[in-house]
Amino acid sequence: MLDAVGAQLVEHGYDGLSVDAVAERSGVHRTTVYRRWRDVGGLLVDVLAEATGDDWRAPDTGTLAGDLVAVNREVHAALTGDPPVTLALIAASFRSRPAADALRTFWADRYDRCAVIVRRAVDRGELPARTDARRLLVAVTAPLYHELVLLRSDAGPELAERAALDAVAAARAGAFLE
Amino acid sequence: MLDAVGAQLVEHGYDGLSVDAVAERSGVHRTTVYRRWRDVGGLLVDVLAEATGDDWRAPDTGTLAGDLVAVNREVHAALTGDPPVTLALIAASFRSRPAADALRTFWADRYDRCAVIVRRAVDRGELPARTDARRLLVAVTAPLYHELVLLRSDAGPELAERAALDAVAAARAGAFLE
Repeated sequence: MLDAVGAQLVEHGYDGLSVDAVAERSGVHRTTVYRRWRDVGGLLVDVLAEATGDDWRAPDTGTLAGDLVAVNREVHAALTGDPPVTLALIAASFRSRPAADALRTFWADRYDRCAVIVRRAVDRGELPARTDARRLLVAVTAPLYHELVLLRSDAGPELAERAALDAVAAARAGAFLE
Repeated sequence: MLDAVGAQLVEHGYDGLSVDAVAERSGVHRTTVYRRWRDVGGLLVDVLAEATGDDWRAPDTGTLAGDLVAVNREVHAALTGDPPVTLALIAASFRSRPAADALRTFWADRYDRCAVIVRRAVDRGELPARTDARRLLVAVTAPLYHELVLLRSDAGPELAERAALDAVAAARAGAFLE
């Protein structure tokens, strides 16, 4: 069912995404689809949740650099995935308020779950205690989104590592302090 | 004429943007519009060039931090401008290959023109000689694009300053080395 949403979105874009089209594609009766998801926004929320797993946890490799590189490898994989479900969702977010809200909620949740990476690094003495987790995490991931989504460069996975390590160097130098 | 393109794009989105609609709105004969711009992509290229000025030069305030804060204030102003022409262009880039190419060309040109900021800072001894200008510049601007375009937060102009200064701290600590 959610696979059908992703496939429809990738193949036909947001314009082709309707509850009716998804019902037809998945073979589920449209009344059932409407009852459970109400609208396209509801479908997208569930696709995002399912694509990433509600039990997702931040990586715990033992070092700040290791954790952030691991996070960024996941972001890179999502942004260069085939089929490009994440890119299709981002594109849809410019057409649909529910899609934009779903993505925003998803990202806010991910940044919240990653805050533990910063707390652990502070506990280990790797970072100053007043480090702003959100600012550090955005500095880690933002270059990937910028290069791959907006600048549409073909940056390979080495960008994931480099951006994470650049941000770690910044954090150790006292950037991102509250 | 180009004002008409921007106004049409902001009011009706990419779907409402056609050479015919722009001709009607601007009062210019459609044959003239077609002869000069050929298609919507050509129009968008010119809107971008006009909106920002072909004679745009990187700020030169005397310090690396001053220059990068100034750059980021311009980016922040563009991304929060009313009418939201830049956001409309970014949204259009997900629908139209010419729009995506126009934006990519525009950004590549801007990053090229900003490289002199890094060269001057190296000459002044503010930065290591092997600092990769593009990586530093992307680290400066990417958090703004991420927060304002994708995460859709209402980050104020203080984010422009903070992101620039965080990246300066990183660069001084030896991040962004080639």
